[in-house]
Amino acid sequence: MDRLEALTNDLREFVAEREWGQFHDPKNLAMAVASEAGELLAEYRWVANTEADHLTKDPDRRAKISGEAADVGIALFLFCDRIGVDLLEAIRIKMKTNSQNYPVSRSKGRAERPR
Amino acid sequence: MDRLEALTNDLREFVAEREWGQFHDPKNLAMAVASEAGELLAEYRWVANTEADHLTKDPDRRAKISGEAADVGIALFLFCDRIGVDLLEAIRIKMKTNSQNYPVSRSKGRAERPR
Amino acid sequence: MDRLEALTNDLREFVAEREWGQFHDPKNLAMAVASEAGELLAEYRWVANTEADHLTKDPDRRAKISGEAADVGIALFLFCDRIGVDLLEAIRIKMKTNSQNYPVSRSKGRAERPR
Amino acid sequence: MDRLEALTNDLREFVAEREWGQFHDPKNLAMAVASEAGELLAEYRWVANTEADHLTKDPDRRAKISGEAADVGIALFLFCDRIGVDLLEAIRIKMKTNSQNYPVSRSKGRAERPR
Repeated sequence: MDRLEALTNDLREFVAEREWGQFHDPKNLAMAVASEAGELLAEYRWVANTEADHLTKDPDRRAKISGEAADVGIALFLFCDRIGVDLLEAIRIKMKTNSQNYPVSRSKGRAERPR
Repeated sequence: MDRLEALTNDLREFVAEREWGQFHDPKNLAMAVASEAGELLAEYRWVANTEADHLTKDPDRRAKISGEAADVGIALFLFCDRIGVDLLEAIRIKMKTNSQNYPVSRSKGRAERPR
Repeated sequence: MDRLEALTNDLREFVAEREWGQFHDPKNLAMAVASEAGELLAEYRWVANTEADHLTKDPDRRAKISGEAADVGIALFLFCDRIGVDLLEAIRIKMKTNSQNYPVSRSKGRAERPR
Repeated sequence: MDRLEALTNDLREFVAEREWGQFHDPKNLAMAVASEAGELLAEYRWVANTEADHLTKDPDRRAKISGEAADVGIALFLFCDRIGVDLLEAIRIKMKTNSQNYPVSRSKGRAERPR
């Protein structure tokens, strides 16, 4: 069992002990992912791109940001567990699609998808 | 090296080949997390809670939803890698806080945080 | 001058007094819209669809929800003002497109876009 | 009747003709606000703050962005109409709170809330 599997087991137990499965249908968990993502976003709202790496080094901000990223992760892992999708495998599949949509030759140094 | 580390390495390489590090400051990656979370959300927008599990079993919807979850995961893993935070460790820390904020005795069957 | 114009003027003044124009480029304001939308979302995260209207009638929840909707509105009006778009006119244009994409004959009682 | 009231009436009619009221409980409309906000966000994801005003002047991008802002506005106006809140009045109330939380003397040139 790798680290992510062990963590997922612990998240599952955390939810089961509190009988939260009744609230954790995929719709509600997708909302949880998005609302937590909104909190992560709020941390960088008024920060210039050029300051974002530097700001993240401040210990207080870093702890806060790290906690917000954790909240997104918890919601996302619970979502995937609920719908029975292996997130890492889903990412492997998506990376293949992305390799085709963003070929190195046409995407080097360009963020927008080539047409 | 576990599966998540191996995947993170591959994501890092994907980005490096395309010279996308210049776009991937923490602010922009937080935006990517949130905009991908919005796409995941859109899949369940008009679906009743009571239909959400069932809908997710439809093969076409499932593939779409799985891909949206993957996009959130990619953005989140890249974000954590950029700021040098171990997501799984951050979740462990957050789970301890959550255990205190949502004690089993007061949170069983109740989603809202006890006051 | 109608109510929305008067309000927009007051929002503009609020920002100018605080010299916040420097933070209010369209990117940052789009982030503000999305992070405030995430807070509105959080209010309904664990609520069933069938309970959502009822919950909103509770005076405390209602005041909170109303304030979150206001935050989204403020960010959206500031965004449109910054980029020089008349939101109501933009909505008129969008409604025409939506009328074509969702013709009454094919969309009655169906939320998903007809193919 | 001012422009916003007239528009709200038309939105209401658009929904009624399609019998979409059944999908438009406050939870689902809050999800619509957030998912549309995610699409607006996506437009500025890889754009530097310093380029965001300039980018928005490009006619194609401008039309796209204007349409995304409209989608957020439609969802927000429908949400407020459903819960019976006057958005402009709610914003007036919020601006009073904001005036206290962000006094000019302490907030001039500073985006973060004073402690």
